[in-house]
Amino acid sequence: MWHTENLVLGVTRGLASNGIARLKVYTERIKNGLINVNPEIKTLHEKPGMLHLDGDNGLGAVVGTKAMERCIEKAADSGVCFCSVRRANHFGIAAFYTMKAAERDMIGFASQNNPPAIAPWGGIIPMIGTNPFSIAVPADRHAPIVLDCSCSKVARGKINVAEIEGRSIPEGWALDSKGRPTTDATEALKGSVLPFGEYKGYGIAMIIDILCGVLGGSAYGPHVGALWNNLKTTQNLGLTFTVIDVSSFIGPSDFKAQTDRMIEDMKESERAEGVEEIYVPGEIELRASERNEKRGIAIGQGVLNDLKELKAAFAIDYEFEEQIAR
Amino acid sequence: MWHTENLVLGVTRGLASNGIARLKVYTERIKNGLINVNPEIKTLHEKPGMLHLDGDNGLGAVVGTKAMERCIEKAADSGVCFCSVRRANHFGIAAFYTMKAAERDMIGFASQNNPPAIAPWGGIIPMIGTNPFSIAVPADRHAPIVLDCSCSKVARGKINVAEIEGRSIPEGWALDSKGRPTTDATEALKGSVLPFGEYKGYGIAMIIDILCGVLGGSAYGPHVGALWNNLKTTQNLGLTFTVIDVSSFIGPSDFKAQTDRMIEDMKESERAEGVEEIYVPGEIELRASERNEKRGIAIGQGVLNDLKELKAAFAIDYEFEEQIAR
Repeated sequence: MWHTENLVLGVTRGLASNGIARLKVYTERIKNGLINVNPEIKTLHEKPGMLHLDGDNGLGAVVGTKAMERCIEKAADSGVCFCSVRRANHFGIAAFYTMKAAERDMIGFASQNNPPAIAPWGGIIPMIGTNPFSIAVPADRHAPIVLDCSCSKVARGKINVAEIEGRSIPEGWALDSKGRPTTDATEALKGSVLPFGEYKGYGIAMIIDILCGVLGGSAYGPHVGALWNNLKTTQNLGLTFTVIDVSSFIGPSDFKAQTDRMIEDMKESERAEGVEEIYVPGEIELRASERNEKRGIAIGQGVLNDLKELKAAFAIDYEFEEQIAR
Repeated sequence: MWHTENLVLGVTRGLASNGIARLKVYTERIKNGLINVNPEIKTLHEKPGMLHLDGDNGLGAVVGTKAMERCIEKAADSGVCFCSVRRANHFGIAAFYTMKAAERDMIGFASQNNPPAIAPWGGIIPMIGTNPFSIAVPADRHAPIVLDCSCSKVARGKINVAEIEGRSIPEGWALDSKGRPTTDATEALKGSVLPFGEYKGYGIAMIIDILCGVLGGSAYGPHVGALWNNLKTTQNLGLTFTVIDVSSFIGPSDFKAQTDRMIEDMKESERAEGVEEIYVPGEIELRASERNEKRGIAIGQGVLNDLKELKAAFAIDYEFEEQIAR
């Protein structure tokens, strides 16, 4: 249920690569015994400000949702809670978790370490994951600020979707296995993706790898198992969640009024030539989800074929309403 | 004392713009009653996982060092502590604080919100600070990993030093007040600096502004007082510190051995053509500090003149050993 919610939220927010495009790979991994559908999530260590969990190789969104809920509970008591979860799987979109904190007038952080995709700055071999992270901040009149991004210039999942759909990718996203720029999705997936902000993104990705992988006791960087094209090994990746209870610092209504004011300061600020609107983090995704909930989600032929295959394999009673995108 | 240590560490680590180049502006601000040299640092709120302090307009490094020390103590008990400090001043280099945590086998985070320098993505008016942050992770055989950077493409302080030294700046660092690219340091300081990683750096800078400014109860973004060329208003900025006690999760020796292995994985990874060495965060700064401690610090004529002026003004008994850099 949590997993489905997460996948649907991914696709409605316009993050196609984290949405139902992953349904087939998850299903295959479950069929092959590489994900535990009935995990026994254990508390390994607990103190007022922290939580260390073992995910028992469960689905990322199942383990992650439990972890985030416990973090929110603990932050209500201790003011702040940081949780590291070992032995998990890909947790879908990170904003799914942080938005749960924002709903409760708390600031939420979430991240996970991914299979290697980014080369060290100056290198050519993928050694660190794209390690997505999200931070959500509650507002009042406005929707929460929701930063949700990966440490690569673009999410690697976008390259996966391009490969499924047989499309090429823009230059500047990735290097091939020899370190040369490429527009071929398959070659890019064999090579490395570039970090955002050059060496700074490389550094941030390394830190996330340490917090999610090393600190929790999961694999890190080159040792994390692949999600795609790997029906042999578990992912053994780590997740972290942090929740800051606003009311432990200042009154939530004051805080949210200030966040509103900050959002307005940004949006009303003078625009550069040719720019129609200034956005705050999460606003573009929110607009996409409002639009998509009204008119439906556009998916490509590759993903549609995957879904039809799954429907047949599991004898699911559901009729696709196909419509060609205009 | 803490303040001097911080300024010297800044300059030895090669971060000239955060080092003694700031001595004059701090002195002027103190003389004008804009910094409280005997702050009474108060605890506003405290729970096991958090700490909310009032810096009483003290020097950033004085307030920040106290805050970091208390965070380390609390993390030893609660596993994790997050601290937000309101009403502080510029805290110098962020790594100064995080390295204190790493020395204690803890992971340290530090950040502060700065006067407006970066325009919202798509805008031209500086609305958000460069908001520097540092994260330090302890290792064993190797020095700690120390990420220390700002949310702008380059630290704004580098443009300040260029102005003091009468030098131009490279293209791509900043825009002038009309949003046009500039290489003139003075024009750049009137305009805006570009965020790192485009809209992602803009988002991260906004989040830091919220954590340091809004959550703690200081000013944020456009409302933070300037450090330079402002002898009228206090800065009223905020600081945050977070400490994660490694031993609450896994054995520190295991953790540090894994960090070592990760550092080695990166450094031994295949290099791109023309790259002589792969670095991990903090390594270049460490090399600079080892080199500078041996052979002395190179400073420019502008900063030297400032120091001579201060020496005369305060009748300090110190002889400069001047030597022309080769």
